[in-house]
Amino acid sequence: MSETAPSRRSAAWETLAAAMCDVRALGGAVSLLQWDQETFMPAKGAPARGDQLAAVQAALHERLTHPRVAEALDLAEREDSGDPDRAAALRALRFDHERAARVPQDLVRALALAQGEGVDAWKAARTERAFALFAPKLARLVDLRREQADAIGVPAGGERYDALLEGYEPGMRVSRLEPILARLVGWLSPLVAAIGAAPAPESGFLSGRFDADAQWRFTLELLAALGFDPAAGRQDRSLHPFTLGLDPGDVRVTTRVYEAQPLSAIFSTLHEAGHGLYEQNLPAEHRRSLLCAAPSMGIHESQSRLWENLVGRSLPFWRAFLPRLAARFPQLAGIGPADFHRAVNRVERSLVRVEADEVTYNLHIALRFELELRMLRGTLAVSDLPQAWAARSEALLGVRPRDDAEGVLQDIHWAFGDLGYFPTYTLGNLYAATLFDAAARALPGLEDAIAAGDLAPLRRWLTEKVYRVGRRKDAEDIVRDAAGVGLTDEHFERYVKTKYGALYGLAI
Amino acid sequence: MSETAPSRRSAAWETLAAAMCDVRALGGAVSLLQWDQETFMPAKGAPARGDQLAAVQAALHERLTHPRVAEALDLAEREDSGDPDRAAALRALRFDHERAARVPQDLVRALALAQGEGVDAWKAARTERAFALFAPKLARLVDLRREQADAIGVPAGGERYDALLEGYEPGMRVSRLEPILARLVGWLSPLVAAIGAAPAPESGFLSGRFDADAQWRFTLELLAALGFDPAAGRQDRSLHPFTLGLDPGDVRVTTRVYEAQPLSAIFSTLHEAGHGLYEQNLPAEHRRSLLCAAPSMGIHESQSRLWENLVGRSLPFWRAFLPRLAARFPQLAGIGPADFHRAVNRVERSLVRVEADEVTYNLHIALRFELELRMLRGTLAVSDLPQAWAARSEALLGVRPRDDAEGVLQDIHWAFGDLGYFPTYTLGNLYAATLFDAAARALPGLEDAIAAGDLAPLRRWLTEKVYRVGRRKDAEDIVRDAAGVGLTDEHFERYVKTKYGALYGLAI
Repeated sequence: MSETAPSRRSAAWETLAAAMCDVRALGGAVSLLQWDQETFMPAKGAPARGDQLAAVQAALHERLTHPRVAEALDLAEREDSGDPDRAAALRALRFDHERAARVPQDLVRALALAQGEGVDAWKAARTERAFALFAPKLARLVDLRREQADAIGVPAGGERYDALLEGYEPGMRVSRLEPILARLVGWLSPLVAAIGAAPAPESGFLSGRFDADAQWRFTLELLAALGFDPAAGRQDRSLHPFTLGLDPGDVRVTTRVYEAQPLSAIFSTLHEAGHGLYEQNLPAEHRRSLLCAAPSMGIHESQSRLWENLVGRSLPFWRAFLPRLAARFPQLAGIGPADFHRAVNRVERSLVRVEADEVTYNLHIALRFELELRMLRGTLAVSDLPQAWAARSEALLGVRPRDDAEGVLQDIHWAFGDLGYFPTYTLGNLYAATLFDAAARALPGLEDAIAAGDLAPLRRWLTEKVYRVGRRKDAEDIVRDAAGVGLTDEHFERYVKTKYGALYGLAI
Repeated sequence: MSETAPSRRSAAWETLAAAMCDVRALGGAVSLLQWDQETFMPAKGAPARGDQLAAVQAALHERLTHPRVAEALDLAEREDSGDPDRAAALRALRFDHERAARVPQDLVRALALAQGEGVDAWKAARTERAFALFAPKLARLVDLRREQADAIGVPAGGERYDALLEGYEPGMRVSRLEPILARLVGWLSPLVAAIGAAPAPESGFLSGRFDADAQWRFTLELLAALGFDPAAGRQDRSLHPFTLGLDPGDVRVTTRVYEAQPLSAIFSTLHEAGHGLYEQNLPAEHRRSLLCAAPSMGIHESQSRLWENLVGRSLPFWRAFLPRLAARFPQLAGIGPADFHRAVNRVERSLVRVEADEVTYNLHIALRFELELRMLRGTLAVSDLPQAWAARSEALLGVRPRDDAEGVLQDIHWAFGDLGYFPTYTLGNLYAATLFDAAARALPGLEDAIAAGDLAPLRRWLTEKVYRVGRRKDAEDIVRDAAGVGLTDEHFERYVKTKYGALYGLAI
């Protein structure tokens, strides 16, 4: 953009490329340490694992914030390489560098300490079902996160929450989220009430014992059907399912298997496979640059949600896969795809977010977003949180927790100081519906392909429109380029109302 | 030692303690990356894994060689803390710091590059069975290792080989190794000839198919019997068995299972379990310091050898464990411990080191030590290596390789530039015999305990005398303190001659 002569191999760029390669590689090492911690690490490895994670994360931070990187960034930004990918990589590096460099080392250490203490106190509080044990640590975390937001800098016209939100969802603002969550609550609440008045679908055939090994083999069949490349990743078991991409060639997904709850493994595999497909299909030619990543948590979650819900809880999907499932579980003989489809789309007013269905899920998020925003703004004291939670739970979901463990203590996020993370789940739900709607328009035979068990057309479309973009664009721009419209609840509303209206026989 | 007032919490020491913690933690991260690479990593993860290893190793090198560490070392060494463990940790850190800091960054990079090219060329040369494809890369590695030895500094009165040997076996010298290997060759050669003239033991009952799962379960039974703590480690499968200790609480051993070769899994598990017991019983109270490590490769190998051979190939051991093995493999019914003992101690003049028995093994090492010493001294040209190998193989082992793959290309060590490593295997064999002899004297009921399957007394003695010492002493001092004598082939000679004299009915 400047008058400087273009130079494809400038010294400044070489410095930054080397730094990005190390940042990516150290990030991959962190991911492996975390993956192993949740899968194979022996119990007595925990203390050393803490040291290992801290040391590699410190090395990553040092590499990202080094004065040589700052100098080279200043120089490289004044060069015009004529390469849009290089320009995008520079923007990504500037973004990450600033967010890391602006936070004083003392605050970084204080946050790390407070997170460790927060998680420990949260665990103790859950066991005792008593929020008071966690309250002082949460109050400390809220204070530190406010400090951190101020250090990073509040975006023009924004507020502290925005500075934190930027860490999960670059470009997103409270001013965009508040109205869209209000709209969602507006049409979801009456829908949930109407569904609650209708008869619940039959799902008795899902009780009984479903052999764990047979479940496991079925999840591997699902991964293969979705196009998860087994030479570029693997599935293992963990207590809480998750996905970590070390590289497009090395993506680790996990699932869990309960013999009495066959849907748990199926839908957690489908969910993580969505994350996994995103990671495997990132632009591998940029594997040593920051472009080889999703631009936000929300767009990443859109893919887990799309494959889990828009595909995995659809009737065409079960036309293809119920026979395969029934081949492993004879107790499902005689159950038709429509029965199965109804059973996996049961809607319930529940207390627990992670068990929530598609319809009520965003009400759980609205609750959390509202409360964490008020805590950061200083209009809700941490000590008043349990009462506020219970009241809003009753208002939004129609259920009131019997104690703190069922309510305010159910999620680990705040114990990590993760304030600003929850709304990315709703963004994921909305982006998923918008992207799936666009895919269905672009691929006229999509439903038939899914019903035939052929998921490749959809995966290819998503790869081209979303996965391969990497971090070249912000999340909403990716959605806008793919679907013609950015953040909206229009497609999600139509999808939910059409599907659940039909399933529950409602006139909507 | 100086006039400086003692200070338990000096700033210099705090700096060094933090550096050691990071060095240990980053080393643990490197180990996990390596372990995963050989066990669970998907194939397409390889390119990124190279970047991850390089980035974490670079961070470790930077932490170890940082000018602040050099300054703090100078200061701390002048303080008298009155704490012998602190003094030992300072010696270890000084040693590692100097070896890392004295080698210029350009040479570090050149070596890393040459190692990568060396391994690639070695693989190609093995496939083609043609040393010439590997020769130029090996010549380059020899040159760079000579340069590295000069940069580190040749010990007083020593030679370049000593500077490299120090990296594997601190305190050891060529001037100690040459006479002891000459002695070994002197008495092993006639013994091998005598055994060759005697009838070979019967081992037909080891052919046929041995179920892989049953083998695996037996190896886990062996690990448990040896006292390998499953809460502080795990066993997995890999192509080449190895052990990596991330921490005393997190030790990874691997083995391999061949259905047609049941002894492979058994003895590789026993071997790696020996390494694993050492790692699990290192002084955990020093887990964040350099003291939490074995002082040398030779002493580490002494423990794999001790458990594999002195215990695992003994008659008392099979009195206890053959019934357990036969319970899993009915085809062994009717075989007695003495038959089994003879079969697992078959001596053969073979071409391949990793398949060599206890008697011929050190002859393979004598061959390699002699040739690598001559290469480093410049008295053997790399291009003459295959001929020299074949000639010395015939002289020492009585067998001549048919081609380079069977001979000079069989080991990967030189492809990594590992010159000076091989003699640590022989040190391991000798130290194992000396330590076991001392244990037998200290524990009068040892043989009976082993025959009853009780390996705890031996493990406890080794833990106290060897494992828990960590890096407070050099290897030979540990052996001397435990056994009353340092490096000697006396106990190994007596052990081998007694055992194999009886097995082969020789009058020795």
